[in-house]
Amino acid sequence: MTRILFAASAKTWTEYRDLLPAALAARSVAHEILTLDDAPDPTGIDWIVYAPSCPLQDFSGFSRLKGVLSLWAGVELVEGNRTLTAPLARMVDSGLTQGMVEWVTGHVLRHHLGMDAHIAKTGWTPVAPPLAADRPVAILGLGALGSACASVLAGLGFPVTGWSRSPRNISGVTSVTGDDGLRTALQGADITVLLTPLTRSTESLMNARTLGWMPDGAVLLNPGRGALVDDAALLAELPRLGHATLDTFRVEPLPGDHPFWTHPKVTITPHIASATRPATAAGVIAENIRRGEAGEPLLHLVDRTEALQ
Amino acid sequence: MTRILFAASAKTWTEYRDLLPAALAARSVAHEILTLDDAPDPTGIDWIVYAPSCPLQDFSGFSRLKGVLSLWAGVELVEGNRTLTAPLARMVDSGLTQGMVEWVTGHVLRHHLGMDAHIAKTGWTPVAPPLAADRPVAILGLGALGSACASVLAGLGFPVTGWSRSPRNISGVTSVTGDDGLRTALQGADITVLLTPLTRSTESLMNARTLGWMPDGAVLLNPGRGALVDDAALLAELPRLGHATLDTFRVEPLPGDHPFWTHPKVTITPHIASATRPATAAGVIAENIRRGEAGEPLLHLVDRTEALQ
Repeated sequence: MTRILFAASAKTWTEYRDLLPAALAARSVAHEILTLDDAPDPTGIDWIVYAPSCPLQDFSGFSRLKGVLSLWAGVELVEGNRTLTAPLARMVDSGLTQGMVEWVTGHVLRHHLGMDAHIAKTGWTPVAPPLAADRPVAILGLGALGSACASVLAGLGFPVTGWSRSPRNISGVTSVTGDDGLRTALQGADITVLLTPLTRSTESLMNARTLGWMPDGAVLLNPGRGALVDDAALLAELPRLGHATLDTFRVEPLPGDHPFWTHPKVTITPHIASATRPATAAGVIAENIRRGEAGEPLLHLVDRTEALQ
Repeated sequence: MTRILFAASAKTWTEYRDLLPAALAARSVAHEILTLDDAPDPTGIDWIVYAPSCPLQDFSGFSRLKGVLSLWAGVELVEGNRTLTAPLARMVDSGLTQGMVEWVTGHVLRHHLGMDAHIAKTGWTPVAPPLAADRPVAILGLGALGSACASVLAGLGFPVTGWSRSPRNISGVTSVTGDDGLRTALQGADITVLLTPLTRSTESLMNARTLGWMPDGAVLLNPGRGALVDDAALLAELPRLGHATLDTFRVEPLPGDHPFWTHPKVTITPHIASATRPATAAGVIAENIRRGEAGEPLLHLVDRTEALQ
């Protein structure tokens, strides 16, 4: 009997209460699921299904823990936690990836087509936008989400440059790395999309220096992590940039007095681009537990080397 | 020496003046191009490159005409012209198709993601939209433009139903035909896209009866032809529908006093979805002239049976 602690909010539990047992049963994993409300004995827990924002932050008592399985794609709140010595897996959910592709493709096309002026009914000005082939896009970060978005945008005809730590081979995507590569990507792009994980080295990746590399009129999309952007530096650069469409923020919900709310060149979406979808995510969690119990390698393991330095 | 009449506005001629001779030369077609300003002898003309809105409407004097090659995808202004007995080819321009795919994909995603509320900054309401798989789309018309849009939307994950005169086999697209098929398509779709050619049988295709088949909250996109929609019937149905985003109108530019301009559920784009791109269109025209001169069948011939009834 595998004992699983579901460490997340009561609201999240209601979403998984039926789906997770069903996904485990479908994989013949005999199990018992406890929640934080059950005040479980940590020494009896095999696996923790984990929302990084939940109250559980000290893993030191979980003496037989086989792994922590994050419900979130972003694991920056937990990866540097020194009390956690068991393997950590991030969520790579096909539903989450699909949702991100839809948000990124939609907002790239919105800015590409100049939709906002039409939505605001500024009049009849029959100037066709350039075709996608003349609208270069940069994707910063080519993990599961970034590479999926890069592939779809390249498939639609956009010239895509992808910036990542190590070179990546994605059909139709120009791969660049390092500080020079970042400069090349930003200087050449009409639209830049932030999808790097948040680490010590990517915090405020978009700052006065790097925002300065974006051409006049360029658009920034941030569906990644709020702390990838230096808010003050962005506000300082916005007068010469085209627009910023932001889905993630340093504090969420974005406080009502934040200047982004009233800035005419900022669109705010309420952290909807990367919603984990319980129907598909439950299967990802269950599959990793099955693998761990069968002695197979876990999927989507986090490399914590940098976070633990 | 092939003699070609370029029958379009002076502005259009400036766009093709260099591109068309270059495209013909690349295909080794020895040619002379005349414009309407040259008042050419009709009996000496082999081919007419044709904008259907131009003053030339009587083809009866063109005794040795081998074909009329439309610069437009929509040929409803010329296909019923009984003075034209030579073959008529429509424009099928890869640039036009690409532009249409971008407009349709962008506006489908805009409505799918509920972007307008975010652009209007209505506040922080963190409700993720459904995934594309739960957002059925109907495409009315599966010609070159409709089938290209249907394929891309199906590739993004939308369930796509396509309505056409005869059944079509497009991967991932459910094909329906006839009045029953139209009803099925409209009743099942959250978003309907009009891309049928305008013919006697599709004029006011969207009327009180067919608009009534669309579910409450559904969205209509019309990048096809303005006369596919009964404007008064659409205005009458809009209170229960979600939105109409229209790129084409019965009169263009859309008159300033048309109620669409002030209706909160209507977005107007200024006939930009299907702009022919001279760089690619010149090659399509030149290729058809080369084919005709070589005795090969013309591409993109129009079936005028219905228009001439």
